[in-house]
Amino acid sequence: MTGQTEVVKLGHGAGGTLTKQLIERAFLKYFRSKALLELGDSAILSRPNSSEIAFTTDSYVVSPIFFPGGNIGKLSISGTVNDLVAAGAKPLYISAGFIIEEGFPMDQLEEVAKSMSETAKTANVEVVTADTKVVEHGKGDGLFINTAGIGVIGRTVSRAASIGVGDVVIVSGAMGNHGATILLSRKRDELSFETKIESDCAPLDGMLLPLYEEYGREIRWVRDVTRGGLFTILNEGMTRRNIEMVVSESTIPVDREVQSICDILGLDPFYLANEGKVAMVVSSKIAEGVIKRLRKHEHGRDAAIIGKVRKGDGHVYVETVTGGLRIAEPLLDDPVPRIC
Amino acid sequence: MTGQTEVVKLGHGAGGTLTKQLIERAFLKYFRSKALLELGDSAILSRPNSSEIAFTTDSYVVSPIFFPGGNIGKLSISGTVNDLVAAGAKPLYISAGFIIEEGFPMDQLEEVAKSMSETAKTANVEVVTADTKVVEHGKGDGLFINTAGIGVIGRTVSRAASIGVGDVVIVSGAMGNHGATILLSRKRDELSFETKIESDCAPLDGMLLPLYEEYGREIRWVRDVTRGGLFTILNEGMTRRNIEMVVSESTIPVDREVQSICDILGLDPFYLANEGKVAMVVSSKIAEGVIKRLRKHEHGRDAAIIGKVRKGDGHVYVETVTGGLRIAEPLLDDPVPRIC
Repeated sequence: MTGQTEVVKLGHGAGGTLTKQLIERAFLKYFRSKALLELGDSAILSRPNSSEIAFTTDSYVVSPIFFPGGNIGKLSISGTVNDLVAAGAKPLYISAGFIIEEGFPMDQLEEVAKSMSETAKTANVEVVTADTKVVEHGKGDGLFINTAGIGVIGRTVSRAASIGVGDVVIVSGAMGNHGATILLSRKRDELSFETKIESDCAPLDGMLLPLYEEYGREIRWVRDVTRGGLFTILNEGMTRRNIEMVVSESTIPVDREVQSICDILGLDPFYLANEGKVAMVVSSKIAEGVIKRLRKHEHGRDAAIIGKVRKGDGHVYVETVTGGLRIAEPLLDDPVPRIC
Repeated sequence: MTGQTEVVKLGHGAGGTLTKQLIERAFLKYFRSKALLELGDSAILSRPNSSEIAFTTDSYVVSPIFFPGGNIGKLSISGTVNDLVAAGAKPLYISAGFIIEEGFPMDQLEEVAKSMSETAKTANVEVVTADTKVVEHGKGDGLFINTAGIGVIGRTVSRAASIGVGDVVIVSGAMGNHGATILLSRKRDELSFETKIESDCAPLDGMLLPLYEEYGREIRWVRDVTRGGLFTILNEGMTRRNIEMVVSESTIPVDREVQSICDILGLDPFYLANEGKVAMVVSSKIAEGVIKRLRKHEHGRDAAIIGKVRKGDGHVYVETVTGGLRIAEPLLDDPVPRIC
């Protein structure tokens, strides 16, 4: 094998000895879960100690697989952890399904597995069960990962129906960094400017779980702001037709470099994805306390109150910097495909 | 749109209004779960009523997507249900992640969703959370599905370590039907003969859960015989180095047509996949009872005792029809890629 790059072959997906070798080569040294090491088809786990559990799934098809600030592995753990946390749950168990295109370099697979393992450790979750499939060259795109996650619901239950008049809208940080980073990674050949912009991809359990513990049901609704961006996500909070949300454009944090990129490319940062940010609606009496606590956390330094909920018609409205008021519609088509 | 086939577009994966339309168009009428209908990123579920839960994941990349006896949708529910059941668990909740290639026909997606829904109903499981991604034309292969599943462990816990000397090896039916069907579907143009062979793809909860209820820990170990085929799977049961399994080739059920296809193509049915069959190791005193009960079930009509466990060296041995004894090694490479 001297000088040759070791790559994934079709036989690595056959379920036999080659599959075992692939798992040992690329995965087992990173995923040390007792349940996973038994290599059965199911993990047997202690029953979560809570009256309700949260269960979520996401497939990750991000392109490119490696990008400034992360890779598909870090993203696949962060994204699923954040879906659970946004539901009010403490994440416990993660499953991982790999669909690998024949010819994918083994060292890249290992690098991805390593990131998954590190991110899982940060988020106090265990990857307990996994599956590997290999498809022919040209029938995939390097690597797709699905993660599903189980968590336990605690004091906060995030429900759009519990949003009410007088509640306050918060974001945990600057908008659009992940989407802008992915876009730039793809256009690096066309665009000549240097930038330090990175994906915000990160698990948010450490920032949010203590808030839930403290504020319980005063936190009405939480969503991680991913595909579709802030304005699409806020619309998902508007399930009641007799209230509306009004957010003020000037208060929504956007990093200067992200704004420049958006200006150049004609994009709106409020429709770009993030992978380490949440939008929340909380009762007005805790809003300042929530902001203070968020800002103490590395992923919440730029947290801001961006709007409020009032009687209305079910829409999300945005007060523009020039003083106008317009409806912030959800995203229709895709400004940046395959960002997660 | 008159006369045009409606297809999935890249924007259907953007997480915005088009994604919502896709979900409403192809999925919601089939997946009626209350949790799923809330369209949050996580499903909130009652805590399973058991001291242990089972958690499993599998990605399905079968090609072709539609085959005699099923399609990728039926397979994706059956396979994950069977992984849970083989672990000794009663399946409860399923997640579904779709990776769709741009241009995939909407009516085929709907057909797949319909099969998933019907199979889930048969298996008494609920699809409670889902995700949809779209990749560009040429970056996927029509449709990949990941399902993860949660079940509750009951009286039987399937563990290779509990297999002991004197135990009996059973298969629930004929070997190789799924693998042979997929192979034939691909070679239909080259091979001119007519065949009625179909995939055995089916959920096995109805056949196995009553057995567990009756026999508890007398059932030592159960595995669904998928990728890798019977001989690969049996090797996974040999985790103790001081026992061995001896199976008799002549007692292993194989349908005549599957055998003919294997003869023509130079394949071994004991390395071909099934998607509705299990191998089990049970205590000798219940073996006849298990066979009797399996045979009463539509998916166990051809159940047979195929061997026994004795003191030995950790291998699986096969007594050939000609009277020889050889080691049945696990599969190395893949005779039929992408069968599941």
